[in-house]
Amino acid sequence: MHLSFTTLLDLLGTFAFAISGIRLASGKQMDWFGAYIIGLVTAIGGGTLRDLLLDVTPFWMLDAKYFLTTGVALVATLLFKDKLFKWGSTLFLFDTIGLGLFTIVGIIKSVDAGLPVWVCIVMGTITGSVGGVVRDVLLNEVPLIFRKDIYALACVAGGGVYFLCRYFNVPSGITEIVGATAVIVFRLIAVKYHLHLPQLQPINKHT
Amino acid sequence: MHLSFTTLLDLLGTFAFAISGIRLASGKQMDWFGAYIIGLVTAIGGGTLRDLLLDVTPFWMLDAKYFLTTGVALVATLLFKDKLFKWGSTLFLFDTIGLGLFTIVGIIKSVDAGLPVWVCIVMGTITGSVGGVVRDVLLNEVPLIFRKDIYALACVAGGGVYFLCRYFNVPSGITEIVGATAVIVFRLIAVKYHLHLPQLQPINKHT
Amino acid sequence: MHLSFTTLLDLLGTFAFAISGIRLASGKQMDWFGAYIIGLVTAIGGGTLRDLLLDVTPFWMLDAKYFLTTGVALVATLLFKDKLFKWGSTLFLFDTIGLGLFTIVGIIKSVDAGLPVWVCIVMGTITGSVGGVVRDVLLNEVPLIFRKDIYALACVAGGGVYFLCRYFNVPSGITEIVGATAVIVFRLIAVKYHLHLPQLQPINKHT
Repeated sequence: MHLSFTTLLDLLGTFAFAISGIRLASGKQMDWFGAYIIGLVTAIGGGTLRDLLLDVTPFWMLDAKYFLTTGVALVATLLFKDKLFKWGSTLFLFDTIGLGLFTIVGIIKSVDAGLPVWVCIVMGTITGSVGGVVRDVLLNEVPLIFRKDIYALACVAGGGVYFLCRYFNVPSGITEIVGATAVIVFRLIAVKYHLHLPQLQPINKHT
Repeated sequence: MHLSFTTLLDLLGTFAFAISGIRLASGKQMDWFGAYIIGLVTAIGGGTLRDLLLDVTPFWMLDAKYFLTTGVALVATLLFKDKLFKWGSTLFLFDTIGLGLFTIVGIIKSVDAGLPVWVCIVMGTITGSVGGVVRDVLLNEVPLIFRKDIYALACVAGGGVYFLCRYFNVPSGITEIVGATAVIVFRLIAVKYHLHLPQLQPINKHT
Repeated sequence: MHLSFTTLLDLLGTFAFAISGIRLASGKQMDWFGAYIIGLVTAIGGGTLRDLLLDVTPFWMLDAKYFLTTGVALVATLLFKDKLFKWGSTLFLFDTIGLGLFTIVGIIKSVDAGLPVWVCIVMGTITGSVGGVVRDVLLNEVPLIFRKDIYALACVAGGGVYFLCRYFNVPSGITEIVGATAVIVFRLIAVKYHLHLPQLQPINKHT
């Protein structure tokens, strides 16, 4: 029951990340296949880098559901693109849920690998954020997360909450839910109240 | 005899991919070394990502011939650049032969690693396509394969033909030749008849 | 004593690479966190790719000092940014020292892994150069090293000096210092006398 709930959220997260890639790809004169690849890379890029760094088999090689879910996302985009605008806030919620879940999945995998806390939090952040970075690089844009929003920082903060729960011996199932929820809540609050870090001002360059 | 034929095609493919990188680098105010690196990355990028995902030693670390062939490609470009335009269609053929061969090499490596069919086809496609993607990212352009031509799709289709042959117990040498030929023929037909997938139309963006 | 000297240079190199990333990030409308990530990627990108290729645990997962040093670099930038321009030539020297040290670190790691000489030199060059390439790709610019300066080539030449010393049985500590110094001297000479390779002239393109 717990497993199927996690699987459902995992697929929702994959779907939402894939949609975000496909939407950004649209209007860039890409064909369907190119848009599929961009959606796929957005959904699996972070977890792939994490697994390469952890030296384990990339997760998507063990289960076709991530490729299939991205295919469903492409078909949904083609069929319902006029309604996607209305879905906007729903998709933002999915994307944020995906971010929370992917972050915790990355942390759990790293804890299992026996890594120190700070490396686990880095791995969680990589799992949640890197797909969007690769998407933006392939679309030839400066990655969004460097310029706007609390995004990666929500992963870091949520990771902190996760390990705080562990420190106080909260049962692991609850720790996972609380950690993922923390990521989601931090991001929602940051967006709602337009919280963001200060920009770095231009510096005279020598080179 | 079979081995040396494969080696010849492998080096021709490397040469053609390297030339395609060096040609795209020219006119971007790069020096010779920069052009060499772009050519090298085009030729070995796909196989390197494949080997990282399969967790085996990257192929070019075991044999200097890929670095040397790229060097020959650079010298050839410097010496004969006026004639390169005339070589155009020959080079396109080499590039397509390289695509076919690299795809099958990627599939064989993955079959040997005991991976399921669909993962093998993905690995073949990565082997054939990713070098060109890294080349375009380094040259600060939206990767060509997302915008134009049947390229990665020819790898997928050729991979399907390869496994169809295996399913019917065709001897492995013939299966490999038929698979590589299929990639090549699919690409040539697509280019000759201007076949391409529909473009994804712009979608109103919420974010 | 030797160890702590190496550690000091390692941290100086990390600091200088991080500063170079943060300086390039400034004025690109990035927030502090984005600038931190760009600095971090500049400092650890090359060694991370090297460790993935060598199939060993990425060095920064074993010691938090690289993340901490990058944090110090960000704070220093925020506090002293008006003075950074004056630091210019000092930072260039740090950056070049970092290049020399990182190159030799990469070579030593590869020699320990039992790789042939030319692969070791490639790994040294990757360790020294790739961080700056990833930085430029993330900032949406054609990587500087493809366009200007003797940079990667200084790594290759310094690597050659390193193995020349080994060939003549120079003690390993001295070999390392001589190799790193060679990289540094090659780069300083190249910059001082404006030495650079010829640019590759535009070629008519067929595709």
